[in-house]
Amino acid sequence: MTTVELPAGTPVETPAAASVAAPADPTAPLDTDVLRRLLDGRFADVKEQFRAEAPDHLFSPSHDLTTAEHRDVTRARLRTLAELGGHELGFSSRYGGGDSPGGQVAQFEMLGFGDASLMIKSGVQWGLFGGAVQALGTGRHHAELLGPLLRLELVGCFGMTESGHGSDVSSIGTTATYDPATREFVVHTPEESCRKDYIGGAAEDADVAVVFAQLLTGGEGRGVHAFVVPLRRDGQDLPGVWRGDDGRKMGLNGVDNGRLAFDHVRVPREALLNRYADVAEDGTYSSPIASANSRFFTMLGALVKGRVSVSGGAQSQTKVALEIALRYGAGRKQFKTPGGSEEVTVLDYLAHQRRLLVPLATTYALSFAQDELMGEMDELLRVQLAGEEADSARQRAFEAHAAAMKVASTWHATRTIQTCREACGGNGFLADSRLPLLKADTDVFTTFEGDNTVLLQLVAKGLLTSYAQQFSDLDTLGMARFATKDFISTYAGRSPAASLVADVVEAGRAPDDLHDRAWQIRMLTDRERHVVESLAKRMRKARSKPEGERFAAIDDLQDHLLLAGRAHTDRIVAEAFAAAIARCEDPAVAALLSDVCDLHVLALLEAEKGWYLEHRRMTTLRAKAITSAVNALCRKLRPRTEELLAGFGTPRHWLGSRLVG
Amino acid sequence: MTTVELPAGTPVETPAAASVAAPADPTAPLDTDVLRRLLDGRFADVKEQFRAEAPDHLFSPSHDLTTAEHRDVTRARLRTLAELGGHELGFSSRYGGGDSPGGQVAQFEMLGFGDASLMIKSGVQWGLFGGAVQALGTGRHHAELLGPLLRLELVGCFGMTESGHGSDVSSIGTTATYDPATREFVVHTPEESCRKDYIGGAAEDADVAVVFAQLLTGGEGRGVHAFVVPLRRDGQDLPGVWRGDDGRKMGLNGVDNGRLAFDHVRVPREALLNRYADVAEDGTYSSPIASANSRFFTMLGALVKGRVSVSGGAQSQTKVALEIALRYGAGRKQFKTPGGSEEVTVLDYLAHQRRLLVPLATTYALSFAQDELMGEMDELLRVQLAGEEADSARQRAFEAHAAAMKVASTWHATRTIQTCREACGGNGFLADSRLPLLKADTDVFTTFEGDNTVLLQLVAKGLLTSYAQQFSDLDTLGMARFATKDFISTYAGRSPAASLVADVVEAGRAPDDLHDRAWQIRMLTDRERHVVESLAKRMRKARSKPEGERFAAIDDLQDHLLLAGRAHTDRIVAEAFAAAIARCEDPAVAALLSDVCDLHVLALLEAEKGWYLEHRRMTTLRAKAITSAVNALCRKLRPRTEELLAGFGTPRHWLGSRLVG
Repeated sequence: MTTVELPAGTPVETPAAASVAAPADPTAPLDTDVLRRLLDGRFADVKEQFRAEAPDHLFSPSHDLTTAEHRDVTRARLRTLAELGGHELGFSSRYGGGDSPGGQVAQFEMLGFGDASLMIKSGVQWGLFGGAVQALGTGRHHAELLGPLLRLELVGCFGMTESGHGSDVSSIGTTATYDPATREFVVHTPEESCRKDYIGGAAEDADVAVVFAQLLTGGEGRGVHAFVVPLRRDGQDLPGVWRGDDGRKMGLNGVDNGRLAFDHVRVPREALLNRYADVAEDGTYSSPIASANSRFFTMLGALVKGRVSVSGGAQSQTKVALEIALRYGAGRKQFKTPGGSEEVTVLDYLAHQRRLLVPLATTYALSFAQDELMGEMDELLRVQLAGEEADSARQRAFEAHAAAMKVASTWHATRTIQTCREACGGNGFLADSRLPLLKADTDVFTTFEGDNTVLLQLVAKGLLTSYAQQFSDLDTLGMARFATKDFISTYAGRSPAASLVADVVEAGRAPDDLHDRAWQIRMLTDRERHVVESLAKRMRKARSKPEGERFAAIDDLQDHLLLAGRAHTDRIVAEAFAAAIARCEDPAVAALLSDVCDLHVLALLEAEKGWYLEHRRMTTLRAKAITSAVNALCRKLRPRTEELLAGFGTPRHWLGSRLVG
Repeated sequence: MTTVELPAGTPVETPAAASVAAPADPTAPLDTDVLRRLLDGRFADVKEQFRAEAPDHLFSPSHDLTTAEHRDVTRARLRTLAELGGHELGFSSRYGGGDSPGGQVAQFEMLGFGDASLMIKSGVQWGLFGGAVQALGTGRHHAELLGPLLRLELVGCFGMTESGHGSDVSSIGTTATYDPATREFVVHTPEESCRKDYIGGAAEDADVAVVFAQLLTGGEGRGVHAFVVPLRRDGQDLPGVWRGDDGRKMGLNGVDNGRLAFDHVRVPREALLNRYADVAEDGTYSSPIASANSRFFTMLGALVKGRVSVSGGAQSQTKVALEIALRYGAGRKQFKTPGGSEEVTVLDYLAHQRRLLVPLATTYALSFAQDELMGEMDELLRVQLAGEEADSARQRAFEAHAAAMKVASTWHATRTIQTCREACGGNGFLADSRLPLLKADTDVFTTFEGDNTVLLQLVAKGLLTSYAQQFSDLDTLGMARFATKDFISTYAGRSPAASLVADVVEAGRAPDDLHDRAWQIRMLTDRERHVVESLAKRMRKARSKPEGERFAAIDDLQDHLLLAGRAHTDRIVAEAFAAAIARCEDPAVAALLSDVCDLHVLALLEAEKGWYLEHRRMTTLRAKAITSAVNALCRKLRPRTEELLAGFGTPRHWLGSRLVG
């Protein structure tokens, strides 16, 4: 197997790359506005506007409501949002939208600072339902539905998941059979496992559903397609429509999740969202995409905005939890120093710093990575809004990127909010601390919009495909023309930040300096490369097994697949952080961020030292030095907590916690 | 520094030690009753009786109740329990008790299979409140209070924690000042941070509180003591008593946690629970324990049953969550095999097995370790019930053991129930799966009855003390007489299982066999020893620093302390598992348990491989072999899931989950 070298330096894209190494006076007052704007990223304007204009009552506590009360409150808040605007940004300007998909997702992210039920409720209406109409529909759907749904005159839901099939959408059982006699589709739920389930809005509010079903025409199955199916008229459910209520949930009780089943419900031929496939009046099926598999993944890919949104929302909820726990820890005192009479502030203990400052650093890292993702999404979705098709390789890379970030942000949220709860002791268990609701609401993020374990395997499979692709291309073109730089830029899922980072990497300091960004990125790149290469080798072997043994052989690699997905994500997140520092023109901010990035990366290397030592990529001395460096960085960043929290830009009353009055 | 050798073999205490290695026919039907009884342990009779007699309605769902409804239901269930009996077991038979502290805690553990609110509510009444009266009071308190509190005619609460002081009880601010003129104590809350907080029963139900306060007499502070303080008479709160309600919590909403403050509330001199200290009518203070510090820790130590109880309760809740997730995973199918038409059962995927079977194995390990702890507790508390004092070294070792197990069981619960929720996807987020309530209720276990981070440091400090003690004794007695065996049996916190295990260790198979129990235990013992020895060295250095630098130097060792606590716990838990296997006389059960123990230990070594590689205690080849062995054990144990769940002995209707109808 060829060993792949790191990419050679590519042209510097910003003039500020050198600022990383610029010495800064640590005592200089830091301009936290600069920090906030950098963290806000590409869609800072939308975020600033939301901070300025969002009415306070959107952020009043909702932790002590019954399910019915919480649903009512959320409904009312959704109306406020509809008037406030921002949700329309992601839609075509021809129908009242703003042609700014990134702007819409940025606002969703801001809703994550408040009650997540409202965030998800708005996401169902304008992200999932509205997004499906926009992305999968054509002019006739846009003209009829977008206006009313943006104004909340039409409330919709998104009927994809079924009781029996969540992750494996291609196997759903709802059918939509075309009847040429009446030019209608007959939507039907053949058995209980095929009812739609966990559908936000299905229990009560939705007037209409986008229903994903197996399209059958001329006696032939054509795979999963989406249909607009009215659920009620004049306040009455239509004949053949059955609704169930999922009832109380761990969190997000402001969202009325429910179940839907259809008993031979007829909808007109035009109900098919027909951007990628259509059925003629006589039942003839046509599609610009020849392969059924490609068609399915193209349709799913058009909806990937949801994963980007959940990633951003999870980050916001994490920021709130961290700010509550850090402010509480900075005020709470417990135990006197040995022999002393002064009680020690809890956040001055090293163990407490490790618990909270490391996730704070990682939250910064993920924020910058999210901004890269948002930029890429915005460009691709603008193409889609214009009715054109994005470059398919770029689209696939973006989808993998979105999956990786969704996994990283949501598991980080689950872990971090849990830690924040524990760090606040009994106070963190009381609802008015807000931590219980943050924990409960975000918990489902790790399994909805794609189960994290499944998504991470998809990411890894994408890496394998790119990897194999490169080698099969090489066979044709000849190994001689193989350029390492091109190879890694594709194989390793080139992120927008990569080319900028390449320069930082090459300009790095001495390789024995743990704080050398070049060394840090190289460590993460090496790990990703090694894991993917060895996975490819093992996968080839597994696939060559006889039929009966193949599944078990491939299944044996699941942990390796998951590791590959994680290793890839770790690398792109660190690269995004490095790129953000390189972009930063304020030396004091850059210096602070450089420490934060060090803490993020070194704590990650510390957590993964088992792998590095096992693969002889780290000496035992270095492993110990990393632990010391993490401790030292915690000490160094402890006095900067206030500034780092200011970077989040969260208005104090949004925190909604008794612990930070 | 002297390197310590493993203990030489000590006499075999059971004849069954050899059965570990006995070959068993893997296809032989396994007697799951044997497995269940082994897991039930020393107090199997109490557990079997509870399974047979507990009324079904104790286990009806409580996930969709308002706070008020949940409190009402819990109150009613507590009355049922009072009639059912079992709670009285831990009390002196002179006052209606059963002289069986282990039996009482075993019943508490069984309540953990149901709604944890009832478990905690009963724990407040008969564990904390009743337990304090029994352990800290004398005849006059027992005669007056035990009967009524056992019959629930008197409802009490346990007022230790304050808003400002949780972990550091010695710094609480409530005062009890003796007034010789009236022969009364004046109980007072000097400021808001000194009000009692998170007190179960304080919001509504408690008629009386055991209040921990700084005792002042003759103008001198005597440290923290406990007092019986009536809160209401004839349904009315008494003058000077203020109650607050902690309101909605993340979980345990059937328990009415609240706050208490006292405005110069007068109680008679006899209100002092005076087992360890008394105040004469003239205000003269006396105590059989000379040192104020020893007295304080003796009083706290008398209450350590609470930690044992929480550990057991956490394990029960974990067992329920695992059974729900495993049964769901064994029924759920998702994705077809590549090229095949059959959908794959989720639990047949390796990644899913790793997520659930490893914690299942660890749950077995912790159960056996809990049983060791229960045996030790029962013996010590019987001495206490008899009005005598236990051997102080043994009592200290038990307290450390209890702290270690509380930490291990509760963090394991938090992690495992979270994993179970995620493993059930959207279904796991719905309240009727029961997983949300299991997660929410158990969440506080990691921070109440001693914050886990603080407790783990206490465990480590205990190890350091034993370690130093050994060396200081050696100075006196002369190094020549130093016997390794004695050294490690004390220093390493000899558990009751240790002597039995020593034999297993010595009789071990080839050292290169990963499944060799001797090698496994040796790996864990080596790590503990190395971590404690290096910690001792660093601590000595830190303590010799000048005053101003000392706190920071010691604080730098916090992570090392936490690691020492974990390493110790890992070793005693594995030893307990090995001892249980050695006790087992049924070869088929022993063979199955041997695999489960292998999975537990090898997964632990895999998770800790960073440390082992860093300290050159594991080769990289061996690290990779361990990963393969964990995978192979998952495959091997997958078909044994049903038997392993049967070992938990949970009646199906106790599971209370829609996912396992």
